[in-house]
Amino acid sequence: MKLLEERIRQDGVVKPGNVLKVDSFLNHQMDVDLFNEMGKEFKRLFARHPINKILTIEASGIGIACIVAQHFNVPVVFAKKAKSINLDGEMYSTKIESFTHKKVYDVIVAKKFLQPEDHILIIDDFLANGCAVDGLIDLIRSAGATVEGVGIAIEKGFQQGGDLIRSKGIRVESLAIVDSMDCDSGTLTFRS
Amino acid sequence: MKLLEERIRQDGVVKPGNVLKVDSFLNHQMDVDLFNEMGKEFKRLFARHPINKILTIEASGIGIACIVAQHFNVPVVFAKKAKSINLDGEMYSTKIESFTHKKVYDVIVAKKFLQPEDHILIIDDFLANGCAVDGLIDLIRSAGATVEGVGIAIEKGFQQGGDLIRSKGIRVESLAIVDSMDCDSGTLTFRS
Repeated sequence: MKLLEERIRQDGVVKPGNVLKVDSFLNHQMDVDLFNEMGKEFKRLFARHPINKILTIEASGIGIACIVAQHFNVPVVFAKKAKSINLDGEMYSTKIESFTHKKVYDVIVAKKFLQPEDHILIIDDFLANGCAVDGLIDLIRSAGATVEGVGIAIEKGFQQGGDLIRSKGIRVESLAIVDSMDCDSGTLTFRS
Repeated sequence: MKLLEERIRQDGVVKPGNVLKVDSFLNHQMDVDLFNEMGKEFKRLFARHPINKILTIEASGIGIACIVAQHFNVPVVFAKKAKSINLDGEMYSTKIESFTHKKVYDVIVAKKFLQPEDHILIIDDFLANGCAVDGLIDLIRSAGATVEGVGIAIEKGFQQGGDLIRSKGIRVESLAIVDSMDCDSGTLTFRS
């Protein structure tokens, strides 16, 4: 998606350790107009899929997922990093390792919000090592529901997450795939 | 807002300890159509305020804030519970006590996203003891920016948060104010 690639080139910052900071428009400050353009594109890409629900994970996936959901006319469920005493009742849970935060989270979704008849699109801001998306797929399959696909804003194409998920036969659509980054020059190469 | 009150009566669950579970439409599964109606109402209420940015806090405020932002044509910034190694640079920070999670969080916003010329609407899902909103006001004032008001989905009118924030001279608009709840009968009383 040219619009997103241009925005990454303009406002993204390449940091040491293959970190791409896009906090001015994607995951700290959020450009809702851009998210709507992303929503249109995901709808175009997944138009033939019978999606009735979007699943994401807190926190930075939530804003994108809600705006994208308007283009599908479906509700959003976000998986929670387990900690709340208000989350009673039955839960599906999985473990997700966060490389950003250097820890393993228990991630949960209330069983009532994932049903066997659900056809689910996973939405997230980044796909890198694939741990978060793989955990969400695990939650959906625990419920006997169907993974219709995965919609990602930015995929780090030089990490193994995209290959990992696609090798399971799941359709992954990333609106921008970064194949390489150089923090000295600040340059990025996108997959064409 | 009648639509929200009716939805709370229909799908909300009153639990012991003055807990109101609205996770089927507000803060776990999210009804984006409802959020858009809430956005229209907030725009009507704050139409005369020169709002150029919305501030919320992760995680459950983010979805509402993004949908509401479309009605103001402004970006959203969400305050983060501090933990990320990617959050370098200068930050405003404050401490917020979560009664739900029984802990005190350091909450941060990158300084570049709160400027003295900003006129900010705070959006959150719940107002109870007021700690979260009070912390967001503290962040905004640290930046020398202006708090234009606070938009809340559900205020627990029997807790002190609403009075606390209004006593600072800040306009607080809550779309539903619950004055009392009874977990035995499952009934709620809304402020008229």
